[in-house]
Amino acid sequence: MSSRPRAERARQVADVLRQRITAGLFPGGLLPDERTLGAHLGASRNAVREALGLLREEGLISRRRGVGTVIETPKYGHGLDRLAGLAETLTGHGAVTNEVRAAELLTAPPAAITERLELPAGTAVVCVERLRRLNGRPLSLDTSYLPADVGRAVLAGDLAGRDVFALIEETTGRLLGRAEVAVHAVTADPDTAGLLEIPVGAAVFAIERLTRLADGRPVDAESLRIRADRMTLHATLHRNRPSPTPAPPLSPLSSPPPLSPAD
Amino acid sequence: MSSRPRAERARQVADVLRQRITAGLFPGGLLPDERTLGAHLGASRNAVREALGLLREEGLISRRRGVGTVIETPKYGHGLDRLAGLAETLTGHGAVTNEVRAAELLTAPPAAITERLELPAGTAVVCVERLRRLNGRPLSLDTSYLPADVGRAVLAGDLAGRDVFALIEETTGRLLGRAEVAVHAVTADPDTAGLLEIPVGAAVFAIERLTRLADGRPVDAESLRIRADRMTLHATLHRNRPSPTPAPPLSPLSSPPPLSPAD
Repeated sequence: MSSRPRAERARQVADVLRQRITAGLFPGGLLPDERTLGAHLGASRNAVREALGLLREEGLISRRRGVGTVIETPKYGHGLDRLAGLAETLTGHGAVTNEVRAAELLTAPPAAITERLELPAGTAVVCVERLRRLNGRPLSLDTSYLPADVGRAVLAGDLAGRDVFALIEETTGRLLGRAEVAVHAVTADPDTAGLLEIPVGAAVFAIERLTRLADGRPVDAESLRIRADRMTLHATLHRNRPSPTPAPPLSPLSSPPPLSPAD
Repeated sequence: MSSRPRAERARQVADVLRQRITAGLFPGGLLPDERTLGAHLGASRNAVREALGLLREEGLISRRRGVGTVIETPKYGHGLDRLAGLAETLTGHGAVTNEVRAAELLTAPPAAITERLELPAGTAVVCVERLRRLNGRPLSLDTSYLPADVGRAVLAGDLAGRDVFALIEETTGRLLGRAEVAVHAVTADPDTAGLLEIPVGAAVFAIERLTRLADGRPVDAESLRIRADRMTLHATLHRNRPSPTPAPPLSPLSSPPPLSPAD
């Protein structure tokens, strides 16, 4: 392996190291020195140094003079095994607080929103946008659109302190059923970067989630942007267990344009 | 909504538009003009123009003179509902071919690798690295480490044409059981960017996947890097169905460093 180009080795070493860091294998939050890491990872000190540089750019670690290489932010796991709100997921790991940036009734919402919620065109919807913090630091930016009958009651709830999911269940007296989730990885635009307090161009998860009541009615069309330096998505996948519900429409999610790759 | 700052509106419009594009709602691969989009999305032409700029930077769309705004790459969906290899997932959507970049027995593998595979230190492992293409264009870079008894047989298989999962099941005569998956979003380092033919700094999924045989034995420790402009991850989540197996260890995945945020 040592004969491979250095950038390639650095990438491979960074992958192994990221896995070990996010799996909690450096419990003190401090990484061993480069020589020790190199021995453990089977890599030269140069490759280790470059790999550490990649992980620094990701915001995962930083170098502190007189201390060494430290894990910058604990990375929290959001499970993809069950539908849960953020505060629910992070129970026991700190206080989730929400800065409510918008909470309003839209009497003439865009057709794109009513279609997504399977409502007739022109039906009023509620928009809630919140910047969510864990222990005071930004973690995600959540924009929800809800049908007006559900949303009005949610607007009256504790939006600064609670998950929208919990508010929906409490105010409707009904349980949520399932959600269709699409996960994208994108780079932060200036607005997102400013709100989440990350550099422009940093990687973020952009998640589209359409949540339905148990009877199948859509009640929450969300766009989430989650800091990828603070959150990892987790799942346990099974080989031979059929999905409990039909899978969402698979690929291609959009038809290819009728253009040649050479254009 | 129109009173909000323009960058914020552009972000919100981009989110709605990304969802519609990846859901296949523009089947011809061509977006309507800005005025039509604005009417549908409830946004000014300026906000639409800025949103289109954000999606162009993501690589999702491009502007073609005399044609309009076209969807650049169909985005394929990889389900997180069931454990499947890439070729299996994309059956019917094109030819998956693999450029084998490494396929070798490591007689003195790094401790970090043997630990991940739950093998005694110094046990030989097999490393397979492949650049995977769909219809000739790079989609992902997959690095697998396998125990030598399983890996040796896989090395003899059709690595250029088949999923490693299929080769493991065929050569061992045993079925895979489950995999623990952690999904990160990162930006492309120069090596990854060169191989996947994307700009340095573009968003990619970095996925760690540890796959086990039905008896629980780990047989494939993988690092995957997937082009985020070509692939979306999908799941259907349920509110009140308990996870079929214990969830992976949740947050914090690593302990916070004993340092103040002001450092």
